[in-house]
Amino acid sequence: MQIQSVRVTPIAVPDVPIRNLKGTHQQVFLRSIIEVECSDGSVGLSETYGAKRTLSGLQKVASSLVGLDIFDLNRLARIIREALPATAGVNAPTALADHKLSDVVYSAYEVALLDLQGKYLKRPVCDLLGGAVRDRVPFGGYLFYKFAKPEEQVGTDLFGEVLTPDALVEQAQHFVDEHGFKSLKLKGGVLEPELEVETLLKLKERFPGHPLRIDPMGAWTPETALKLANRLEHVLEYLEDPSPGMDGMAAVGPKCPIPLATNLVVVEYPQIFEAVQRNAVQIILSDHHYWRGMTGAITLGRICDAAGLGVAMHSNSHLGISLAAMVHVAAATPNLTYDCDTHYPWVQDEVIKGGTWKFKDGSLPVPTAPGLGVELDHEALSRLHALYQECGVDDRDDLAEIRKYIPDFERLVPRW
Amino acid sequence: MQIQSVRVTPIAVPDVPIRNLKGTHQQVFLRSIIEVECSDGSVGLSETYGAKRTLSGLQKVASSLVGLDIFDLNRLARIIREALPATAGVNAPTALADHKLSDVVYSAYEVALLDLQGKYLKRPVCDLLGGAVRDRVPFGGYLFYKFAKPEEQVGTDLFGEVLTPDALVEQAQHFVDEHGFKSLKLKGGVLEPELEVETLLKLKERFPGHPLRIDPMGAWTPETALKLANRLEHVLEYLEDPSPGMDGMAAVGPKCPIPLATNLVVVEYPQIFEAVQRNAVQIILSDHHYWRGMTGAITLGRICDAAGLGVAMHSNSHLGISLAAMVHVAAATPNLTYDCDTHYPWVQDEVIKGGTWKFKDGSLPVPTAPGLGVELDHEALSRLHALYQECGVDDRDDLAEIRKYIPDFERLVPRW
Repeated sequence: MQIQSVRVTPIAVPDVPIRNLKGTHQQVFLRSIIEVECSDGSVGLSETYGAKRTLSGLQKVASSLVGLDIFDLNRLARIIREALPATAGVNAPTALADHKLSDVVYSAYEVALLDLQGKYLKRPVCDLLGGAVRDRVPFGGYLFYKFAKPEEQVGTDLFGEVLTPDALVEQAQHFVDEHGFKSLKLKGGVLEPELEVETLLKLKERFPGHPLRIDPMGAWTPETALKLANRLEHVLEYLEDPSPGMDGMAAVGPKCPIPLATNLVVVEYPQIFEAVQRNAVQIILSDHHYWRGMTGAITLGRICDAAGLGVAMHSNSHLGISLAAMVHVAAATPNLTYDCDTHYPWVQDEVIKGGTWKFKDGSLPVPTAPGLGVELDHEALSRLHALYQECGVDDRDDLAEIRKYIPDFERLVPRW
Repeated sequence: MQIQSVRVTPIAVPDVPIRNLKGTHQQVFLRSIIEVECSDGSVGLSETYGAKRTLSGLQKVASSLVGLDIFDLNRLARIIREALPATAGVNAPTALADHKLSDVVYSAYEVALLDLQGKYLKRPVCDLLGGAVRDRVPFGGYLFYKFAKPEEQVGTDLFGEVLTPDALVEQAQHFVDEHGFKSLKLKGGVLEPELEVETLLKLKERFPGHPLRIDPMGAWTPETALKLANRLEHVLEYLEDPSPGMDGMAAVGPKCPIPLATNLVVVEYPQIFEAVQRNAVQIILSDHHYWRGMTGAITLGRICDAAGLGVAMHSNSHLGISLAAMVHVAAATPNLTYDCDTHYPWVQDEVIKGGTWKFKDGSLPVPTAPGLGVELDHEALSRLHALYQECGVDDRDDLAEIRKYIPDFERLVPRW
């Protein structure tokens, strides 16, 4: 079964101005939707980042894939390595897609090939990854401080302004009521640490049985991180990326009473070894979008098992194709014992047929249909591609965006 | 596709008294041949160790596999973990099969399931492992000092007595002439180190373009190892397990001018992290028989890539089913850059149809038929099973065997 054509369609999906250390989300988030068509007419789907650099990388490779056998993942990797030589600067302080381009592009196409393999085999993709160890995958509620969405932006707002502990707790209440999430994760590094601690304490009070996490994205110096961690010892399930860089994490990890997680300082396999040696992290966030695809995410799970590290799952803003892949990976990763992250409840549109995925008790069922188990809604794809063309956003820039709200905002890492 | 029945047949294959640090091979070597039959009548094959402990582990699990889906490798692992709880004592100074039983049993059945998956899919197994990156797999010649085979033993001898450097060089010449091997590996730890160095120097002289290796199986103290390594710096491609245990290897590795390889001190994933931290090894020998199957061997390749370690391939005495699996794994491991080990040229019988595999220029073609690409010869299986029942050998005991030749032989590790 050989690839006959590859189509990459950039789309824009209305978003809300949720905040993080480095800025705020734009009026839309960008995704690339990939359709890989085979000689027999079957189509494999995939979804990944839609910012300029990823889109250009995907497009640069697309024509080289014609004729590739859908099972030849090693050749896929070679084609991509040759078309997109790895750039220097692992751990550069930019978005993942900027410094791991070849891994990101490989990952995107691997998902489409696995979707095709599954369809060819009439098996769900998780069967190609070793088989599902669970039939439902639990997710957590992802909580964000945010601005109210300006009226001139496309799409509608959710929750209005959320910039106080109490408003954040109400947001959490909504997510718990609506989706049944158990774990709750706060995107931190936004407010003064005292206010974020207050938020977590109020969440703990409101949801005493729910595992809590915070991800300040490296906002805190190691001194600040350790001071806060000592106050949060019995409040948090894990603390994600409290301090910047491997040095920052290594300064916190060995003395921290709470397990440290990361999706910033360990984003390539070799970094796992340094992190283990320095006891810099105890949990690594998996993400098939950059850990060399779904097979790479399974490998990561096995390496973490070998290293005595835990595995959780990272998320960016995404739609239902990515979510399907996340569910299959999570289902086939035996040691993924933490509820997965997802931005999905923040998203108000879809490109898959049949509407959005529905959470029940915070979890999603593992698809049993062949491949990923999702189908593309071409009308929705056209609509969101039109929005991409019209909205004037073709790159992610959280910093420029936040300066519309806070003109003198400076990107400081760490900030406190 | 579910498993309907499992058959495990122990066999004995005539062997010759090749020597190693711990003793000498018996008149036969033992293997277990596994047939896993599915509801549609298709049969998956596998081959692994045949000593008591492995055989009993395989048999203990067999009936629990009925009903298992052939894609559910994670469930296979769980069934085996539950039936055979891991024993303590990783790195105990016994045969691998003794301390990694659950991994060995998992590995054996995984091969059969992958054979079935491939047959179901009409694809060679390497396609399920990411695809072949090479269409031929190069092997090396495995050279052994040996006794002449006593006449009362079953089977015929090869080479007579080989206990001098010159006799060993003639053995190598035969292997090179007959099979076209490039790399040559000497099983060391048998003669005085001076004689083994002399052997290597004579091999270098006779085969100047051939990469050479020696595996003394931990026979040398770190002091001896370093002294010899300094003399062999420009002679050897790598030095395998010169000194015993992680401590021994860590005492040699950082000062050794030759890369160290191992199949003794790194035999489970967690040990990789310690080996890297201590710079105890630079090359790990893969072996799908104990690295959690073929998918586990692929994972090992990926971990070695991440760790900056090389990958080679280990061998025990084996027949053509194991060899097929070795070839598929090697084909799908991009960073397997060393010629693979194999005992196959020492073996004088087969259980697969069509006779033995033939080396050409030292390499074997990657099978393109569905599954492993080999078929069982039931007549041969019966014959070798009958030999198993008649020969009086049901366990491996190289020490007892060598005492037939050297009554006061003592097992010393290290010896020099």
